[in-house]
Amino acid sequence: MRSILKTSVALASLLGLTTVGALAADNLDDVMKRRGLSQKDILAAAKTYTPTGKRDEFMVFSSGGQSGQIIVYGVPSMRILKYVSVFTPEPWQGYGYDDESKKILDQGKIDGRQPNWGDTHHPGLSETDGKPDGQFLFINDKANPRIAVINLHDFETQQIVVNPILQSEHGGTFVTPNTDYVLEAAQYPGVLGRGYAPLSEFNDKFRGAMTYWKFDRSKGRIDEAKSFSIELPPYTQDLSDAGKGPSDGWSFTNSFCAERYVGGIESGKPPFEAGCSANDADYLHVINWKKAAELVAAGKASKINGHDVLPMKTAIEEGILFLIAEPKSPHGADVTPDGKFIIVGGKLDTNVTVYSWEKIKAAIDAKQFASKDTYGIPILDMKQVVHKQVQLGLGPLHTQFDSKPCVAYTSLYVDSQVAKYDYCEGKVLDKISVHYNIGHLMAMEGESATPAGKYLIALNKLAIDRFNPVGPLHPQNHQLIDISGDKMELLYDMPIPLGEPHYAASISADKLKPGVRYKYGTDSRTGDTSPFSVRPGSEKIVKTPGKVEVFATAIRSHFTPEIVEVNEGDEVTFHITNAERAEDETHGFAVSTYIGNLSLEPGKTASVTFKADRAGAFSYYCTEFCSALHLEMEGYLMVKPKGAADTGPDKAKDAVTYTKTDFDKQYNTNIETQKVIDSVVKYIMSTNYKDFPTVVALVEDAVDQLNFAKDAKSKTDEAAKKNDWQQGTLWANQWWQYQVKAADIGLRVKTYLEQNGAKVVAK
Amino acid sequence: MRSILKTSVALASLLGLTTVGALAADNLDDVMKRRGLSQKDILAAAKTYTPTGKRDEFMVFSSGGQSGQIIVYGVPSMRILKYVSVFTPEPWQGYGYDDESKKILDQGKIDGRQPNWGDTHHPGLSETDGKPDGQFLFINDKANPRIAVINLHDFETQQIVVNPILQSEHGGTFVTPNTDYVLEAAQYPGVLGRGYAPLSEFNDKFRGAMTYWKFDRSKGRIDEAKSFSIELPPYTQDLSDAGKGPSDGWSFTNSFCAERYVGGIESGKPPFEAGCSANDADYLHVINWKKAAELVAAGKASKINGHDVLPMKTAIEEGILFLIAEPKSPHGADVTPDGKFIIVGGKLDTNVTVYSWEKIKAAIDAKQFASKDTYGIPILDMKQVVHKQVQLGLGPLHTQFDSKPCVAYTSLYVDSQVAKYDYCEGKVLDKISVHYNIGHLMAMEGESATPAGKYLIALNKLAIDRFNPVGPLHPQNHQLIDISGDKMELLYDMPIPLGEPHYAASISADKLKPGVRYKYGTDSRTGDTSPFSVRPGSEKIVKTPGKVEVFATAIRSHFTPEIVEVNEGDEVTFHITNAERAEDETHGFAVSTYIGNLSLEPGKTASVTFKADRAGAFSYYCTEFCSALHLEMEGYLMVKPKGAADTGPDKAKDAVTYTKTDFDKQYNTNIETQKVIDSVVKYIMSTNYKDFPTVVALVEDAVDQLNFAKDAKSKTDEAAKKNDWQQGTLWANQWWQYQVKAADIGLRVKTYLEQNGAKVVAK
Repeated sequence: MRSILKTSVALASLLGLTTVGALAADNLDDVMKRRGLSQKDILAAAKTYTPTGKRDEFMVFSSGGQSGQIIVYGVPSMRILKYVSVFTPEPWQGYGYDDESKKILDQGKIDGRQPNWGDTHHPGLSETDGKPDGQFLFINDKANPRIAVINLHDFETQQIVVNPILQSEHGGTFVTPNTDYVLEAAQYPGVLGRGYAPLSEFNDKFRGAMTYWKFDRSKGRIDEAKSFSIELPPYTQDLSDAGKGPSDGWSFTNSFCAERYVGGIESGKPPFEAGCSANDADYLHVINWKKAAELVAAGKASKINGHDVLPMKTAIEEGILFLIAEPKSPHGADVTPDGKFIIVGGKLDTNVTVYSWEKIKAAIDAKQFASKDTYGIPILDMKQVVHKQVQLGLGPLHTQFDSKPCVAYTSLYVDSQVAKYDYCEGKVLDKISVHYNIGHLMAMEGESATPAGKYLIALNKLAIDRFNPVGPLHPQNHQLIDISGDKMELLYDMPIPLGEPHYAASISADKLKPGVRYKYGTDSRTGDTSPFSVRPGSEKIVKTPGKVEVFATAIRSHFTPEIVEVNEGDEVTFHITNAERAEDETHGFAVSTYIGNLSLEPGKTASVTFKADRAGAFSYYCTEFCSALHLEMEGYLMVKPKGAADTGPDKAKDAVTYTKTDFDKQYNTNIETQKVIDSVVKYIMSTNYKDFPTVVALVEDAVDQLNFAKDAKSKTDEAAKKNDWQQGTLWANQWWQYQVKAADIGLRVKTYLEQNGAKVVAK
Repeated sequence: MRSILKTSVALASLLGLTTVGALAADNLDDVMKRRGLSQKDILAAAKTYTPTGKRDEFMVFSSGGQSGQIIVYGVPSMRILKYVSVFTPEPWQGYGYDDESKKILDQGKIDGRQPNWGDTHHPGLSETDGKPDGQFLFINDKANPRIAVINLHDFETQQIVVNPILQSEHGGTFVTPNTDYVLEAAQYPGVLGRGYAPLSEFNDKFRGAMTYWKFDRSKGRIDEAKSFSIELPPYTQDLSDAGKGPSDGWSFTNSFCAERYVGGIESGKPPFEAGCSANDADYLHVINWKKAAELVAAGKASKINGHDVLPMKTAIEEGILFLIAEPKSPHGADVTPDGKFIIVGGKLDTNVTVYSWEKIKAAIDAKQFASKDTYGIPILDMKQVVHKQVQLGLGPLHTQFDSKPCVAYTSLYVDSQVAKYDYCEGKVLDKISVHYNIGHLMAMEGESATPAGKYLIALNKLAIDRFNPVGPLHPQNHQLIDISGDKMELLYDMPIPLGEPHYAASISADKLKPGVRYKYGTDSRTGDTSPFSVRPGSEKIVKTPGKVEVFATAIRSHFTPEIVEVNEGDEVTFHITNAERAEDETHGFAVSTYIGNLSLEPGKTASVTFKADRAGAFSYYCTEFCSALHLEMEGYLMVKPKGAADTGPDKAKDAVTYTKTDFDKQYNTNIETQKVIDSVVKYIMSTNYKDFPTVVALVEDAVDQLNFAKDAKSKTDEAAKKNDWQQGTLWANQWWQYQVKAADIGLRVKTYLEQNGAKVVAK
């Protein structure tokens, strides 16, 4: 039962003689009958099913709501590919568990408190000329007003900034057409700077605001010093959008509870919901952010918590802030792709209102105002600036755009429908029922200057009976809708298993160019080379009084070092670099009952610091199943009890003794194994494998493993020279382990070449 | 633009005149051509695609690896329905954020340290007569030896127990056929009780163990006092399984590194992986746990950390512990459905070894042992007890069973294949390639006494090129395989977006009977009525020096109370009960910049306690989009600065004044709205709606809303009597809000009745 590579099965497998399954005898009609599928279902299945290895056309970045994360999925397969941790620690990604990511979470401390969660609402992709460019992703936290920056090179969160003045926000993130600024609007009014004032002074002391975060694309970071806010009335600002084309330089933010009602049901007052929806209209805020930035640069801002805030009074005087009535308790304020219109849905209205930027600008330029609000802000005459109102149904919320001119989609919350309409002509084109109570919706690149059409996703707030029950807490239901034809067609129900998304942003998949490995020794949170990375052979343990610092590497299937001795009470730091280059060869690291988890993707360096406050013998291990001998990728952290005698280096005696016979047996196995490997290598080299980048990468990895095998062979031969059959047999085993890894890769190469039609080009 | 329920669109919508999309003009051939799909792909799509509202046949509970969670998905749709938080805090579920769940996580503190993560490996479903019964789920934590109990009534974690003696584990959780015990095997050897001994004393002082956790089904909890362990040699125990049928009362645990090799690559020794795989065989542990339990009951155990541990010596003397050689670095030890065989795969072997329980038992009864190990444990003669060895390929790992007799499936890690074979005859039946490097596999109820067959899932460890790239950290790839025919067929690739599953357990979906709501006022972590729940109308704020306790309710769309005043430095507790009965009407709760998130499913009471250590005016809000006026579901926590003057109750003045005209307008709207509602009610009542339980529940909810509307109408009328047009108009608005909610439900009822073929039975 020895020597896996010598058997006939092994050889057959390596040389391409695997059993190939015959075509299924099943018949489509039988399957349809058995599963109760209609022809329409089969068409929907064909439009979404994505066979193994095939790619999705679009990628979606959905907020994760109260999970504090971002959800990444593919369209049309509707398969979730990743949860990216943003505001909440998550151990699989090591986020909040390694020292490097703890620094990012620490940036998000708000007034000294680490929330350890976020309520993510509206992801925004970086744009160039109003089109998503696939470089960065932004996301807001409604609960603890913050913005995070995610680098789409590695899908990791690299920055969190705290809003210096808001205690609540909602209307972020929306970017200006070249990502100069990231917009964040307040939600529930508060005292700017998170101060206190009694509710009896609500109208005078409570305020809203718009924050414009300056983004430095070259650094991939928000520049807090160059960011600013504009003070606004306590109107409960909500969603926002940046102008584009003719409206570039302006931004639009809706609001609800312009009544400035403050509830108090406990003392007999009707609740917020009654008083905040009593009036027929709220206000759309129209802001000239370009001029605001100039005013701030000219020193017209006041400082609150060190942050530039342009006072409302100044904004009014300088003519950069206007209001327009918008019906009723609105939710979306969406600028059309050409920048000519702004569409607002009123949750308690049956219409969407299409505002004309041309008319708004004309009224502003002519200073034609209907009135002023309590705070002196000019209010434009709604009738004068509205292009159309389109009656859609109950509870219009949020709007996205098609690639076809003038075609928009608006979610109808109460009706549980999506309405398709022509906003130029004001004509309803189609409606489709969704399940149930849709919040936002999202068409492919549907908020950009050049929407891609094809698909639309309904972000439904209730699933109720759509899926197998999983207890009182239900998944959300994202429904994929085909919008390529005249009529919308429901294609797929996707449950969201974790978190409640509010909005999503999409991008053509070919615009994303993420890496699959890091440059050797990268701190992924800064993007720079980690000062703590080491190369294999340079690993070290540095001890200073009270502190042990371990500079380690990880590679299939061992850590170096394997034994670390510390004293009880020491502060211990492990810096570990994954020395792999192979795609998907991630290692993990945890010390049992102490710390974890580090996620070490190829090339990454991550660190973890902890106090060894309990004596004992604690194993550490690789937490990612990385190879056949993954479970053997282990080590021991030996925490010597306080006051224990120093008995010198602590070495285990081998329990098993190996003889020359054992040595010879393993040695011969390895020689035979090498012959098999050579034959596989010969086969690969005979093909046009260089035409397949994936295979070239695998071959590179196999060559690495074979070089490691050579090193282990040298150590084997060296021991044999000294007749040290113990070390010799063990190193021969290690040599064989590298051979097995090379063979494993060889098998994958073979499969790939077979499946992708490689040709034999040489004998 | 007022009065949404009066418009023609609204009426049309309510009365069933919605636009129905025409059948798509697309043709299946066109779609196949466009998307590059083969006929085989279409068949696979038809076998997996699950249209809106249709249910999956099986439910899978997969471990979440380093995420510390459980992943729940449906088969054959392969849609992930829920991540259940177990060892890691997760804010969407409020897990680790509300006081109730913090207590569960606190149970998992290990030697005073809260790991805040876990490395979940092997979920186990509770069984009755060896078959999964859908009541409870167990899961282990490899990193911090612990077991968690999840109640499948609500899919929530209700207990975590800490292993009192192990510092590392792996081979859990596996249950005995009636869930009397939950098995947990050690992994890396340590000093029992997590003590210290130098590695030079590895063979003498380091130990493995098996822990048998007593499960009290009536309480749904592990009974720690009645649980026990058996001391084992330091052989790095691994996977386990409980016997059944003829082998009931026994358990089987494999091991690797029976060489007891301790690495030290940093000091020139070959690494663990070399020394731990040097020998041809490791040991299968065969343990009579029923007799062990009797011995423990008879007082034969020693106490370590207060826990009963049966010494190895006693286990040997009493004849309950045996070893059998197993080739080589094995991973799975799986008992066949009839309990007659145990199948072990050796990762570095090409065979699986099928052991005969009959032969093992006979050898034990006859005391026919080949030898003893170093520790005096009898070793059975492998040749004498093996039924068959079946040569499958490279890296056999783990085995599952088909509904067809004698048919098993074993994962082949190195070959990246699944082998199907007849273990009675020792004959390979089929093989299929998977992508890539499969770890465990899982057939439907494939570890039970009555496997269900039909589908098998390959839990592949590498995805590499299977999906759209999402950075260096790749998703895992679970592949669904059709095993209903003679040949296995690959149906679907499912990416795992978060965590690295190791094993999964499945159950026929119809065996699960989760609830959709809680009994009013339930603490979901205990399952009992919360002492902190209140009914609507009984909400209160209890102030004692230094402490404010709020007993609140949540219902569409307001909290009661809405304004809570505290002093800086107070300890504040919110106890909130969700007063909804409607399915999926979850509310959430967060105080901006302070705390969150609570997840309040219908009927649940949850609490959160925090120190109001920063003065200011902080909004709180519902974090789940629960209704059209969800954003208006808000309140204020007013934290008065230290030393601020007490100015009496802090009430906001209404910014808007309402007149009799406003009042009349709203009143009339409500009367008109009621007419529409009445007509919808009439329509519903005319149908056979009582035949649809979902509709009955919705109608119940609508009736609730209309009753609330009546209450609000009374308040409206009362105010009007006093000519209080301010309060009158606001309460009229609240009355209308309840009407809108009732209408929303009415729409859902209508849709449901239409889609499910309701008939008009009365005029």
